Amino acid sequence: MELHRFYSSLAIRNDRKIVVLLIDGLGGLSHEDYGYKTELEYANHPNLDRLASRGATGMLTPVLPGVTPGSGPAHLALFGMDPIAFNIGRGVLEALGIGIVMDPTDVLARGNFCTVDDTGAIIDRRAGRISTRTCEERLSLLRDIRVPGCDIELHAVRDHRFVLRMKGNDLDGAIDNTDPGRVGAKPAPAAALTRRSEATAGYVNAFVDQALDRLKGNSPANALVLRGFSMLPKIPGFYELYGLRSAALAIYPMYKGLARAVGMDILNCGDAFADQLRTLETHWESYDYFFIHYKYTDSCGEDGDFLSKVRHIELLDSSIGPLVGLEPAVLAVTGDHSTPAALKSHSWHPIPLLLVSPTCRRDGSTTFTESVCARGGLGTMESKYLMGLLLAHALRLETFGA
Amino acid sequence: MELHRFYSSLAIRNDRKIVVLLIDGLGGLSHEDYGYKTELEYANHPNLDRLASRGATGMLTPVLPGVTPGSGPAHLALFGMDPIAFNIGRGVLEALGIGIVMDPTDVLARGNFCTVDDTGAIIDRRAGRISTRTCEERLSLLRDIRVPGCDIELHAVRDHRFVLRMKGNDLDGAIDNTDPGRVGAKPAPAAALTRRSEATAGYVNAFVDQALDRLKGNSPANALVLRGFSMLPKIPGFYELYGLRSAALAIYPMYKGLARAVGMDILNCGDAFADQLRTLETHWESYDYFFIHYKYTDSCGEDGDFLSKVRHIELLDSSIGPLVGLEPAVLAVTGDHSTPAALKSHSWHPIPLLLVSPTCRRDGSTTFTESVCARGGLGTMESKYLMGLLLAHALRLETFGA
Repeated sequence: MELHRFYSSLAIRNDRKIVVLLIDGLGGLSHEDYGYKTELEYANHPNLDRLASRGATGMLTPVLPGVTPGSGPAHLALFGMDPIAFNIGRGVLEALGIGIVMDPTDVLARGNFCTVDDTGAIIDRRAGRISTRTCEERLSLLRDIRVPGCDIELHAVRDHRFVLRMKGNDLDGAIDNTDPGRVGAKPAPAAALTRRSEATAGYVNAFVDQALDRLKGNSPANALVLRGFSMLPKIPGFYELYGLRSAALAIYPMYKGLARAVGMDILNCGDAFADQLRTLETHWESYDYFFIHYKYTDSCGEDGDFLSKVRHIELLDSSIGPLVGLEPAVLAVTGDHSTPAALKSHSWHPIPLLLVSPTCRRDGSTTFTESVCARGGLGTMESKYLMGLLLAHALRLETFGA
Repeated sequence: MELHRFYSSLAIRNDRKIVVLLIDGLGGLSHEDYGYKTELEYANHPNLDRLASRGATGMLTPVLPGVTPGSGPAHLALFGMDPIAFNIGRGVLEALGIGIVMDPTDVLARGNFCTVDDTGAIIDRRAGRISTRTCEERLSLLRDIRVPGCDIELHAVRDHRFVLRMKGNDLDGAIDNTDPGRVGAKPAPAAALTRRSEATAGYVNAFVDQALDRLKGNSPANALVLRGFSMLPKIPGFYELYGLRSAALAIYPMYKGLARAVGMDILNCGDAFADQLRTLETHWESYDYFFIHYKYTDSCGEDGDFLSKVRHIELLDSSIGPLVGLEPAVLAVTGDHSTPAALKSHSWHPIPLLLVSPTCRRDGSTTFTESVCARGGLGTMESKYLMGLLLAHALRLETFGA
């Protein structure tokens, strides 16, 4: 049985509230410039430490040992889905990142404008990295292309990149890239990977043929390639699975999109953490589960800025009062993955987890750091198990096999 | 998706080197004669301790909690294969142990000479444990037996034990034991367990019929039984999967055979650890992954010789300098399983793991012992995940779902 179906089969309803405070890219790495401490170990966070001494700590492995996740799999795992089974394709991720609200029947692809020579062979895979504005202009040449059988939408992303969205009945995303992935080759026709996707591949080719006609003679963006054809996986929602009325407090489109994919309401909130918490207070009575996404720690990690990541952890810590004051039945503080400043990128290292609930087995943790969490009472588990643990601590799972 | 295929799908190449130092049977057990310390806790190993303080520690569960592995599954797991799915049969293991270089199309079986009475019923399952020399003599009676459809090779192992190797086209190893496993029963004809193995079972019976004729009248080895019919599992190689040029520095045939099964080159080296390290230095530039097998700790554990196992750990520690000096990007020191002197056998206890790499999250370990590793920052994971972790620390895995 799929993991979420198993947890779902045990789910019961009550009025206990669950809050997940997700600190994006939370996990860090020992940094030689800072006494071999991680960002979380270096930061001063008395309020998180106080929570640790009331709760229990552990570690989450985002996907499997050694595997560095993108945001898609990392979040789906925290939402209780197996991140390998529910892999999100590049086209869908790109669309989520610019805030497109998709249907699971849509097919999405990531598009690149490129430059081809007279024979049609690619000579620049990024069309000289045209500006987003030029990208918009080129897309406007293509927007009135009609393809019988589906509706096509085009959305600029950045530079030479755009999203192709196809809407229709019986579309299927099992289509190979038209992007040959190298200079010197011609863009390939869209090839169906299964019988079910043959019609959709035909629509793609009908669109591309017309698009190439219209782009001809432009410079440098005189052609396009598509890749990452995909559909939003059919993910059951939190209410359907667990009877949870759920809401997300996120600032970036990508995270709103991922939360929406599991059926969360997206609440409008300001940019700052304090704004997010004010929105939380306002809607406290209307939901059972809240997902709060704190983005800045990840960006600082990506920039390699150790001290700035430290400061953003400290800022969050100093503002957390209103959340603690609401006394959720279960509060989890964790990340989606590690983004160590030392690596300037996402990484595979396990993520610190802090769980506060009256049903926690206190483990003697007195601070919230990687080294404490690695020895914490919750042990190390894959992120996909967190959802079951949250439901359990909210007394929302009945006994199995009783 | 199979685990190794998943890791493979993310693998990229670079020039970072991985070394696995495998101390066979490393894990021990608290011993009442030695202050309830394990062998590793009792031993003095300042160099391993120094590595621990630069790296991170954890524990490997060889197969599943409670499961004691043989050398086959224990090693395959460390090489990234699921040890339950890629089970290696007794015949293949026995053949690997005496250095037979097999093809995956061969069928192997473990043979025993035995003694039967006038009715053909077994009265001694080991033929009085005849000497290896007598075993050789009996085999020489059988070597010119011809069976149309396949070639048969016979190799003495030790005492009454030998290996039967069948080479041919379309052979299949799904054949039941001819060994009834008890005194008083007659050897059974070889029975095909699937339709595909019917022809092979026929060849076995053609061989056995002739062999029994020739053994008749000898004493005490006047018959034979076969068991553990098996074929080398079709295991993809390290280069094909991960782009790793890999080499093994092992002394015993079994470990050379297991390493060869995943595509490693087998490097000639002397018997001592220092010789192995000299060979490592010589070939350092030619490979990306080195597997160094240190055998003696396991043998001492099997003998129940606590202090001798301690001494061999200390000997390894005192000789490890040249390996550390090569500064591999990733160095893992671990075992294939535990062989506690207190049990005089392999055991199911998790195996200490020490990982040293610039991308380690230092966990405050200052010694390398079971009790430290059990609280180490890497947590406890199944051995089959080590391969992914090694690749990650060598920055040889790309982001999943980005």
